[in-house]
Amino acid sequence: MSRPSSFTRPKSVAVIGASNKPGKIGCALVSNLIESGYQGRIFPVNSREKEILGLPCFPSVADIPEEVETAVFAVPAPKVLDAAAGCGRKGVKNLVVLTAGFKEMGREGMELEKKFLGVCKEYGMRMLGPNCVGFLDTHTPINATFLKGFPARGEIAFISQSGAMLAAILDWSKSAGIGYSKIYSLGNKADLNEVDCIAEAADDPNTKVILCYIEDVACGPEFLRVVSQATRKKPVIILKSGTSQAGAQAASSHTGALAGSDLAYNTAFKRCGVIRVDSMSELFDLAIAFVNQPVPKGRKVAIVTNSGGPGIIATDKVEAHGLTMARFTKDTIEELRLGLPPEAGIYNPVDVLGDARADRFKFALEKVLRDENVDGAAVLLCPVAVTQPVETAQALIELNKAFPEKPLIAAYMGGQALAEGVRLLTENRIPCFTMPEPAIAALAGMVKYREMTEKPEIEEKAADFRPDQKTVKAVFYDVKKDNRLALLGSEAAEVIAAYGVAAVATELSQSPEEAAAIADRIGYPVVLKVASPKILHKTDVGGVITGIRSAGEVKSAYVTIMENVHRYLPRVIPHGIEVQKMVPKGVELIVGMTRDVQFGPLIGFGLGGIYVNLLKDVSFRLAHGLTGAEIAEMIAETKAYTLIKGYRGENPVDLGAVSEVIRRTAMLAVDFPEIMEIDINPVFAYEHGVAALDVKITLS
Amino acid sequence: MSRPSSFTRPKSVAVIGASNKPGKIGCALVSNLIESGYQGRIFPVNSREKEILGLPCFPSVADIPEEVETAVFAVPAPKVLDAAAGCGRKGVKNLVVLTAGFKEMGREGMELEKKFLGVCKEYGMRMLGPNCVGFLDTHTPINATFLKGFPARGEIAFISQSGAMLAAILDWSKSAGIGYSKIYSLGNKADLNEVDCIAEAADDPNTKVILCYIEDVACGPEFLRVVSQATRKKPVIILKSGTSQAGAQAASSHTGALAGSDLAYNTAFKRCGVIRVDSMSELFDLAIAFVNQPVPKGRKVAIVTNSGGPGIIATDKVEAHGLTMARFTKDTIEELRLGLPPEAGIYNPVDVLGDARADRFKFALEKVLRDENVDGAAVLLCPVAVTQPVETAQALIELNKAFPEKPLIAAYMGGQALAEGVRLLTENRIPCFTMPEPAIAALAGMVKYREMTEKPEIEEKAADFRPDQKTVKAVFYDVKKDNRLALLGSEAAEVIAAYGVAAVATELSQSPEEAAAIADRIGYPVVLKVASPKILHKTDVGGVITGIRSAGEVKSAYVTIMENVHRYLPRVIPHGIEVQKMVPKGVELIVGMTRDVQFGPLIGFGLGGIYVNLLKDVSFRLAHGLTGAEIAEMIAETKAYTLIKGYRGENPVDLGAVSEVIRRTAMLAVDFPEIMEIDINPVFAYEHGVAALDVKITLS
Repeated sequence: MSRPSSFTRPKSVAVIGASNKPGKIGCALVSNLIESGYQGRIFPVNSREKEILGLPCFPSVADIPEEVETAVFAVPAPKVLDAAAGCGRKGVKNLVVLTAGFKEMGREGMELEKKFLGVCKEYGMRMLGPNCVGFLDTHTPINATFLKGFPARGEIAFISQSGAMLAAILDWSKSAGIGYSKIYSLGNKADLNEVDCIAEAADDPNTKVILCYIEDVACGPEFLRVVSQATRKKPVIILKSGTSQAGAQAASSHTGALAGSDLAYNTAFKRCGVIRVDSMSELFDLAIAFVNQPVPKGRKVAIVTNSGGPGIIATDKVEAHGLTMARFTKDTIEELRLGLPPEAGIYNPVDVLGDARADRFKFALEKVLRDENVDGAAVLLCPVAVTQPVETAQALIELNKAFPEKPLIAAYMGGQALAEGVRLLTENRIPCFTMPEPAIAALAGMVKYREMTEKPEIEEKAADFRPDQKTVKAVFYDVKKDNRLALLGSEAAEVIAAYGVAAVATELSQSPEEAAAIADRIGYPVVLKVASPKILHKTDVGGVITGIRSAGEVKSAYVTIMENVHRYLPRVIPHGIEVQKMVPKGVELIVGMTRDVQFGPLIGFGLGGIYVNLLKDVSFRLAHGLTGAEIAEMIAETKAYTLIKGYRGENPVDLGAVSEVIRRTAMLAVDFPEIMEIDINPVFAYEHGVAALDVKITLS
Repeated sequence: MSRPSSFTRPKSVAVIGASNKPGKIGCALVSNLIESGYQGRIFPVNSREKEILGLPCFPSVADIPEEVETAVFAVPAPKVLDAAAGCGRKGVKNLVVLTAGFKEMGREGMELEKKFLGVCKEYGMRMLGPNCVGFLDTHTPINATFLKGFPARGEIAFISQSGAMLAAILDWSKSAGIGYSKIYSLGNKADLNEVDCIAEAADDPNTKVILCYIEDVACGPEFLRVVSQATRKKPVIILKSGTSQAGAQAASSHTGALAGSDLAYNTAFKRCGVIRVDSMSELFDLAIAFVNQPVPKGRKVAIVTNSGGPGIIATDKVEAHGLTMARFTKDTIEELRLGLPPEAGIYNPVDVLGDARADRFKFALEKVLRDENVDGAAVLLCPVAVTQPVETAQALIELNKAFPEKPLIAAYMGGQALAEGVRLLTENRIPCFTMPEPAIAALAGMVKYREMTEKPEIEEKAADFRPDQKTVKAVFYDVKKDNRLALLGSEAAEVIAAYGVAAVATELSQSPEEAAAIADRIGYPVVLKVASPKILHKTDVGGVITGIRSAGEVKSAYVTIMENVHRYLPRVIPHGIEVQKMVPKGVELIVGMTRDVQFGPLIGFGLGGIYVNLLKDVSFRLAHGLTGAEIAEMIAETKAYTLIKGYRGENPVDLGAVSEVIRRTAMLAVDFPEIMEIDINPVFAYEHGVAALDVKITLS
């Protein structure tokens, strides 16, 4: 199905289930369409009315004498199938379905929704909803919702999986003076979903920033593909709820949607360059900054304040957000020293003192904005003795125009005394907050956006390495034939070796004598490990003996392990015992893979060893399309990186070889979707090369 | 010096430097005193005026015919000494000094401030400021500030180290409808400081919650003593800035105050039961909750919402804040099932659906508040179709009265459409936010307060254990005589052994032969470690050899270590080599101590070993007055606790012995203030007992 060229700019709209009765959705809809100033044709449809709110009414869509591009449904659920077929025959392109009573109501509703979607597909119609509140576009203009009020025209697109939240946001935005370009209510996302709406908003010249509230994504790979493109055009800021165990439960009881794990969402958002926020306030604070100010070139922030306290608070936040306090050039400092009173703070934050009038703010701000070491500035103003909030606002506006490439954010701390100044700043596109903290958070969000989207979009050359897929297939064939899902250690080692990951020589023995023979062949010292897919933590059951130096020791270790295992787990019958060449201890790492239902395989990397679950030092990325830059980034995020670089005088270990293990594990996971989980733990990393000691692979 | 019985309720006030000229501080002051409705006598003092704003004016304080309790200074800095002496002779009790030009201006100002304080002490006067904006009390009433506007009467006391921030907050509070009981501006804190003001506000019957903005505390021990008492009377919420490196710099350039480390502040606040917040918004969000609603009995929160999305967002926050979603009783669930529409969410969060009128909100809220498993509730309302914000508010007010012991917080998500409902809720003491997140944060803050202050205030029995202080003194004597600050390992082991911490037998040798003799005596296997206070990380320079099993091996190890050290650190001449009995590996822990200038010794505990700095798994408490409950808490906060409890099938180790190491290390640090730092790393913990392997002690 092709995406409609512009869903929110239809030439004509039919309202199926239009009504004259105030309080009915079908009445609110027609009224909203008319009042929004919509310039296309509006066709109310209702078999029992001749006229609705002054417009001629048609008994059915078929009776409309002109073309209908979009039909909005306000009829009860049992009528949608017939109405949809009628629309299909008429050649309607898009349906907006406000009707509830589908998937959200359980099994029966789910069936009805499927049939409904079937009709749409049959006629090539796209559908927004069902169970949504509609859409609006202030630039078309069109209000195809049943909500009260039409927002001010603006440059924010808002996409919401919660209809009630849209009602709240529209009402709140009116008081807060926030305008929108377009608003979509997703409802059940039977057809069109967040990805379609983000794509449309990304291409919309009237939209500068895209906000989303979602509880899940409809299709992980599609999301990744489309949203990665969208974020290169404009910021996409998402509040994704259901992060907690309990929240996810609430989410799935709410929409019947399958909530992916929060980790996978974080990883996917990072890949796409999506800014994820944690609260509704942040969503709007950031949007206001993006809509009105340029994205800063870097992290270096200057603060100008007429009060020390807020200056310190803002400085704390600059560091907490990973920004840096700009270090002014000598010239700037000298100019500030000469131009400000001796008690003023001339380093960053610049404290122009409580008795500063507008001219002193202007002087100081001009100097710092001119400084090449400053990427953006925040001005904090408290209403003390002689403060001139309006004149200071005028100075800020002037300087913002003079330095159009450097974002300027204000915090006017107060109420009535500052209202006129706040109004002036807001009108002139300088975001103005009441507290210093959101001002810094807004700058931080902008910097994050630049850093996420500035990453080169490299199509990395296909690696020259060709994995030996035949070996992997053969191993999997045997495992499946054996009715197992978990591979033995020796099998898993063979699989990763086929992908070029050096696994330490490991062979399976089934008797003390065979073990001794293997050990004689591969050379001493060796380690013996019990071989059983049912034993997850071998050391915990006495299933591992290390440092064995002779055939005699091998034989007695074999017996000891079998006895230990029998004592701890009397019902488990091991496959045998693995004999592994003992290697010197290196830096202990883990490389692993887990598969998310939405976003596919996630690759993890971090500190390995038996404490891996305790230390939780593991960073994740999506395996699909994993780039060298991402591998470098995920390594650098971990504490393990400190060890890799050489901790406390140790020599650094082989970063290239470690990266290669990650890359090849990702390849393996992508090539074989039947692999559910991989755990290579530990991987020993040495000055030269690495060795995978213990490999677990589970199939689905 | 005794604390004034009520600083903010003086019988009479003289204004030194009163003025008739609008714009002058001395004019604003007199005007504010009059307009606040202050009932005591006001005496303007100015040698060049007969009358000020209708009040008779006196040439000097001496000329006032009546008693003067408080004098407010608005004269220039050079005049304060004479004026203060005049006040002293007159018998004035309290000075409020708005005059600037003291410590904040550098060395000369600092000298003047000292002299000023000297005059005050001479006459037994207390001083607020200098360089402050004064104080006000809405219940006295009195406005002894030069700020514009007098706040509404309320129950919040606000104490601020930033004067300009007070101006901002007063202006903002007027718009936000927030009232205050009293406000103090601390200024330079030459005499009275946050501790005095907190103590006064804690005893003030008109104050229900105390807010502070501070950049440092004047005196750590005093703060701990007084504020611990205050928090048992009412919540004390502090925004302490200067948390970041750069912020602390800004703080100290601002007030010339010595900023303690942030860790020490966190630890001290925890000890006192202070709620530390991270932003100005949180400060007020929490205050509004505390002033208006009861503190919940526990963590179990119920959410009632007319929209799924906000319900999920709130649920996420409940978990993020460490609260729990209440699990309703079967009865409640059954009643909700019967009384709500079939599509409603009857588990927590309760979704009363978009078409809920006030009666449905009321029904559901009544059921959940009645539930014994619910400690408090949040109601989230979006303005959809038939929502009745005012009637719903009335229902909430009624139910809040019916269940007075369970806090109720609302989030009315919207603007104009909800304004009347919001007003009604606020007037009736139900805190109402615009977004769901701060509503949950407010509940969380209240729970935190209960949990922090509910800890039994035990005076633990003095331990029956008597440390051998003589040995410690003798060791320190020798170290000082040797002109060293760092103790040798063997000395440090002796010190902690004197405090009953089992250190592994360690002796210093000065030749291969002596080492072998020691090893023969203490028994094999042994470890050899280089002994030099100049070598911090002995393993890094090849200064440790383990597993030595014979006298011959000892001798060759001795030589190897000396050679290694010489190669890495040619300028270091070791004191010799320590021979230590080798002990089996236990759970590797660290116990340490560092000394903060404000709050004294901090005891740290966590995962030990060579990766301690990498893993950063260390929790801290104040050593002074460390209780058993605190020790249990600090252990439980760490990942090390997982190992102590027995990780992956291991037996648990000796928690009592671990606790004892912490307690005795704290005793040692308290008894010997000359100890700068202690590091016992690792401490091996076993099923029975512990062993301290490596002990570092540094003196100051």
